[in-house]
Amino acid sequence: MERITTIPDRNDEILKALEQAGKRAKTVICTGGLGPTPDDITKQALCAYFNVAMEFHAEVFEDIQRYLSNRKISLNKANREQAVIPQCDRVLRNHRGTAPGLYFVRADTHFFFLPGVPEEVRHLMRKDVLAILAEIFDLRPVKTRLLRTTGIAESRLIEKISDLVEQKPNIRLSFLPRFRGVDLRFTLNRDDEEVRRQFDNFVNAVKDRLQKYVFTELEQELEGVIGEILKQKGYSLSVAESFTGGLLGDLITNVPGSSEYFLADLVTYSNESKIELLGVNPETLKKFGAVSEQTAVEMVRGVQKRFLSDCAIATTGIAGPSGATPDKPVGLCYIAARAGGKERVKEFRFGHDRIMNKRRGAIAGLELLRRILLDIR
Amino acid sequence: MERITTIPDRNDEILKALEQAGKRAKTVICTGGLGPTPDDITKQALCAYFNVAMEFHAEVFEDIQRYLSNRKISLNKANREQAVIPQCDRVLRNHRGTAPGLYFVRADTHFFFLPGVPEEVRHLMRKDVLAILAEIFDLRPVKTRLLRTTGIAESRLIEKISDLVEQKPNIRLSFLPRFRGVDLRFTLNRDDEEVRRQFDNFVNAVKDRLQKYVFTELEQELEGVIGEILKQKGYSLSVAESFTGGLLGDLITNVPGSSEYFLADLVTYSNESKIELLGVNPETLKKFGAVSEQTAVEMVRGVQKRFLSDCAIATTGIAGPSGATPDKPVGLCYIAARAGGKERVKEFRFGHDRIMNKRRGAIAGLELLRRILLDIR
Repeated sequence: MERITTIPDRNDEILKALEQAGKRAKTVICTGGLGPTPDDITKQALCAYFNVAMEFHAEVFEDIQRYLSNRKISLNKANREQAVIPQCDRVLRNHRGTAPGLYFVRADTHFFFLPGVPEEVRHLMRKDVLAILAEIFDLRPVKTRLLRTTGIAESRLIEKISDLVEQKPNIRLSFLPRFRGVDLRFTLNRDDEEVRRQFDNFVNAVKDRLQKYVFTELEQELEGVIGEILKQKGYSLSVAESFTGGLLGDLITNVPGSSEYFLADLVTYSNESKIELLGVNPETLKKFGAVSEQTAVEMVRGVQKRFLSDCAIATTGIAGPSGATPDKPVGLCYIAARAGGKERVKEFRFGHDRIMNKRRGAIAGLELLRRILLDIR
Repeated sequence: MERITTIPDRNDEILKALEQAGKRAKTVICTGGLGPTPDDITKQALCAYFNVAMEFHAEVFEDIQRYLSNRKISLNKANREQAVIPQCDRVLRNHRGTAPGLYFVRADTHFFFLPGVPEEVRHLMRKDVLAILAEIFDLRPVKTRLLRTTGIAESRLIEKISDLVEQKPNIRLSFLPRFRGVDLRFTLNRDDEEVRRQFDNFVNAVKDRLQKYVFTELEQELEGVIGEILKQKGYSLSVAESFTGGLLGDLITNVPGSSEYFLADLVTYSNESKIELLGVNPETLKKFGAVSEQTAVEMVRGVQKRFLSDCAIATTGIAGPSGATPDKPVGLCYIAARAGGKERVKEFRFGHDRIMNKRRGAIAGLELLRRILLDIR
């Protein structure tokens, strides 16, 4: 990837950007501006740029009719106009929306125009764009490896591996900070057996150094990794949330097939619901408060007992901005987890942003469970 | 905004992009590449581009020490190096992370370099960048208005208002499709009393035409709007989720102060938990299935009864990719809501993507409650 350019919906800007990109690259992929609203002017701009006319495309019209009728939406004038498209070298038919993709070849530059909705971009990239490019440029897959980490700050991570990562010819290492932690992506620039072996040795050495912080080498998140461990062990999971307000359940149920191991999640925002649903002792709430190690432990035990699950996670804390007391600041959070008879509870001090705090808490809850399951300290 | 350019962490690309942007614009804002990892090379590139040296900055070092000690993280070599920065016209001190922002003026172009973490970008934009720009360019606020919609497709929306929106001098209307629905942003290009009145009349006419689909004029989401209605009416809310797996609770608790009205959320993924926690009749599950109008209604009544809440929402459906039966496809979903004695239940047919289905279901649940609360059909 050489460059991404983002411009406003203005004819002169579209023409200028196409001109510049066409000079710079052999492949230009554009997204957005193909929809039915008046600020979608890309189709008109393409007619001017490529010097072609608009035409009604019967197959595209059928796609649009099918797409809408599946959703029980009636066809209107704006939808019909979406089947009127610039004459191009190939129409990329869209099964996830109403705007088709367009493909043009000029001199030896390949232009792709896709709608802007992320789901539709992914669909057309997978179905058409990558196949066309692979054929034209005789592309072969690049060797890459991924190490996904969590629970370690970027500066701490680099300190741990700085002596390893200096000067590696043929290998590119990118540090990709995510909310959950840093992803390390290794790319091999040359490809023969000897270099391949060096590459794997190098990645393995980095992985070895980072140990417990690496939770996967695949394009999956913590909840996916935990799901696999649970399925493998035949374990079930239940959750009790206060601090994270449903986010843990949301993440866990993002994983296809999670209903195999995920039983239930009780989001107990009030003290009464903690007592009634989880069996938290009112005395504990009175003596230590809802935001305490003791309450977190009673929550995780309570939810596990209630659903007879093998594993459980519980969160309690002050997400903010209100709710702080002199000795309990915003961001204070207790997370408890249980798996196969083992139990851990941990205190966290997150920041001031409510949404960030919830996200940090959910990730910390998943990571605590992963570490118990894999017996990592 | 004229253009956004995204480039790889390569010295030649950084220099080329700065050169081009400096020619094109009077203000250039750059983000990312200021961190402690080896692929963060922007500071070195800036020394070359602006022909300046690096220097240790004592105040920045204090900021870093303070930031880390607040988080109980010990200082390391990489952190100390973050206080070594190119000589610039002004350092933009960062209280949300370890990399400071940098400000350069060359000829009459203003360059800002900010770290890439979104929270830190927002912090430095608000604290420094906007203030500097407002002073230099004597900027005054532009008059804008926002109409946020949900429950209507983009093509349907444009059909409803197409006769209104043609040819309005001085007014720019942008259609911003969000997952939840289209945002309409109106911007006034000229500013005198007469034009202002026309502007408001125009926006009001559009709003009038779209009626029930406009849920707010503010920068807030459905869960925030519902929170305000609930607080105003003194109503409480409980939720029972199957299809959405915790996402509804997550959205509701994203709103600061939601603990005032939000009591609890029972994520009942198994049939047993629907029976035991919500009092769904086993006969109902047997006769109509967990994914049915009848089950949705028993879920919403059950959770409302259990917590004696004024309002309740319940979701049940097949999020996919598995779980479909011949007469119940992936994406089928029933949502029920109750408020102040009124009850509605609605069938939805979403798509094939699990994560999208959950998001659509959560939004549909919030919207159903909003419409009951405001007596909108």
